[in-house]
Amino acid sequence: MSGFNYKQSGVDIDEGTRAVDLMKKEVRKTYNDNVLSDLGHFGGLYRADFPGVRKPILVASTDGVGTKMKVASLAGDYSTVGMDLVNHCVNDILVQGAMPLFFMDYLACGSLDASVASSIVTGLARACTSNGLALLGGETAEMPGFYKHGDYDVAGTIVGVVDEEGIIDGSAIEPGQTIIGLPSSGLHTNGYSLARAVLFEKSGLTVSDTPDPLGGETVGEALLKVHRSYLNEMKPLLNLKLVTGMAHITGGGIPGNLVRILPDGCGALITPVWEVPPIFSVIGRLGSVDDSEMRRAFNMGAGFLFTTSQPGRVLGILKETGSEPFVAGMITDSAGIEYSNDRGDCI
Amino acid sequence: MSGFNYKQSGVDIDEGTRAVDLMKKEVRKTYNDNVLSDLGHFGGLYRADFPGVRKPILVASTDGVGTKMKVASLAGDYSTVGMDLVNHCVNDILVQGAMPLFFMDYLACGSLDASVASSIVTGLARACTSNGLALLGGETAEMPGFYKHGDYDVAGTIVGVVDEEGIIDGSAIEPGQTIIGLPSSGLHTNGYSLARAVLFEKSGLTVSDTPDPLGGETVGEALLKVHRSYLNEMKPLLNLKLVTGMAHITGGGIPGNLVRILPDGCGALITPVWEVPPIFSVIGRLGSVDDSEMRRAFNMGAGFLFTTSQPGRVLGILKETGSEPFVAGMITDSAGIEYSNDRGDCI
Repeated sequence: MSGFNYKQSGVDIDEGTRAVDLMKKEVRKTYNDNVLSDLGHFGGLYRADFPGVRKPILVASTDGVGTKMKVASLAGDYSTVGMDLVNHCVNDILVQGAMPLFFMDYLACGSLDASVASSIVTGLARACTSNGLALLGGETAEMPGFYKHGDYDVAGTIVGVVDEEGIIDGSAIEPGQTIIGLPSSGLHTNGYSLARAVLFEKSGLTVSDTPDPLGGETVGEALLKVHRSYLNEMKPLLNLKLVTGMAHITGGGIPGNLVRILPDGCGALITPVWEVPPIFSVIGRLGSVDDSEMRRAFNMGAGFLFTTSQPGRVLGILKETGSEPFVAGMITDSAGIEYSNDRGDCI
Repeated sequence: MSGFNYKQSGVDIDEGTRAVDLMKKEVRKTYNDNVLSDLGHFGGLYRADFPGVRKPILVASTDGVGTKMKVASLAGDYSTVGMDLVNHCVNDILVQGAMPLFFMDYLACGSLDASVASSIVTGLARACTSNGLALLGGETAEMPGFYKHGDYDVAGTIVGVVDEEGIIDGSAIEPGQTIIGLPSSGLHTNGYSLARAVLFEKSGLTVSDTPDPLGGETVGEALLKVHRSYLNEMKPLLNLKLVTGMAHITGGGIPGNLVRILPDGCGALITPVWEVPPIFSVIGRLGSVDDSEMRRAFNMGAGFLFTTSQPGRVLGILKETGSEPFVAGMITDSAGIEYSNDRGDCI
């Protein structure tokens, strides 16, 4: 056999099989009674049986973790990016009132290392378990020449369900309602290209550095904080019909995301008094990044906003369960998103 | 504003908006009455209403087009890779008997060119239209430093539905049944790393070259032939319950895919007498690729195989509609996949 074979062209089928073997156990843990298939089938099978849902509407969303992968690669820690991705997607359909059913992942790299792939997929599986959804299937693609050695991209699609009557689209938002915020853990999965440019390229920091404001934490640790899922905090409030609108604060920040759910004739006055994780001030200061640019690139500590006409009751319920909600502002009758009480320190 | 902003870090939000504007029209054409959402929502909404399906099972599959993207990039033609992806996914759930409902795409690049992104998504949308499914949503990610300039990766997730009683898993396959094949258009979306290594790296060909066996076609044209969807050919046969098992011939070839549906005690004898597209012999010859390696890397002209106990009726129905089926072999009672009538010329 002097001729070419697949492995010589850069695709190692055996390493792919080894990766699947490593991740199998964690993936199977995510299965529930609705899952009819097992790993290795062409497609994943999920029973469309939704007890108590009268008019089921499927809600689907696709996302990646962007260049947070680059930070994972620099830090040599791929255990959390899978969690970031699942939690991000869970939040993305939660804002429409949907409960997650299953997740499908896509993992691509230039040269497959089974232990890295397994680490990423294990993260996906663990977040699926803690959010109660099945990791139903996925694709691992080895694409030589496309991705640099050590670079992995991961993306995924979530499918959830909501009763048609329970769809939340912001149409019930009215002036005078309160905007409640839930804290983020850090950048979540947005703004990493800007953060990397400022921290690594402009300022010459490494993932192991510990600039003062981080209080002993490394840059890598601060940047890799896991994207929070807001499902468990929001579920009881949704069941009690206490929520009129929800926004997952991702790329575009509060201005870019809250505006997507405001009905005509409504605006928002944001009162930025919540605690901003120190990583944001480090980025803002080292990069001399404009406040308005910071607010559009980052969540600035507010990972999830929702509106309610019963703020007292909502805050009570959340605090009882150990959540740390804050009043982030209110709905106004003038269009647009304004910030009050501007502290001028990049909130 | 002397500080950093997002665009300087390599992410151009305006170009992203321009891309969405360009692709909107084609995407909207894929919508049907079950689609409740529009572009720009957080998640896509799809009514889970399946008339005539008694016990609906959702079937999901995720895939990419692998390094076929690299050929699209070399040829400067991104119009077909989206079709490849959708058709691939349609086939992947078809083999379990599922009809497609909706598709979600993930498009990633280092530097977003709105016209390229629009070309890719338009291809996705057109294939969705011709297969009758909705392009319900997606994500376009600009990841500077991750992808080389001009490189795009595209992946997607399909969700379909099958009645539980209609799930086809190969358990009805029995020795003596006939294996029918349907022709591929070429490599479809598998084996491109090997093909590129042989054609471009080892042999120094370019996408514009026209080696003799291709009959005037360029290497680029032969390699970019659109992955065929077998949905419309197979649907009438499935409705008539004439099919006992189906295999989409992707990575792993016939040996790697047909084996996945064979029940215990069944094997297959493949009679490779169908027409092999000339691109395969070009690759085999120039790369001195071993026959068994060719069969594991490529579909070798058989894009889809299925089994039936009524081959005469099946062939009649298919030929009536202009299809070009061939008898690809038969199910045996000895385990494994054997090839008969070995022509020794890389079939």
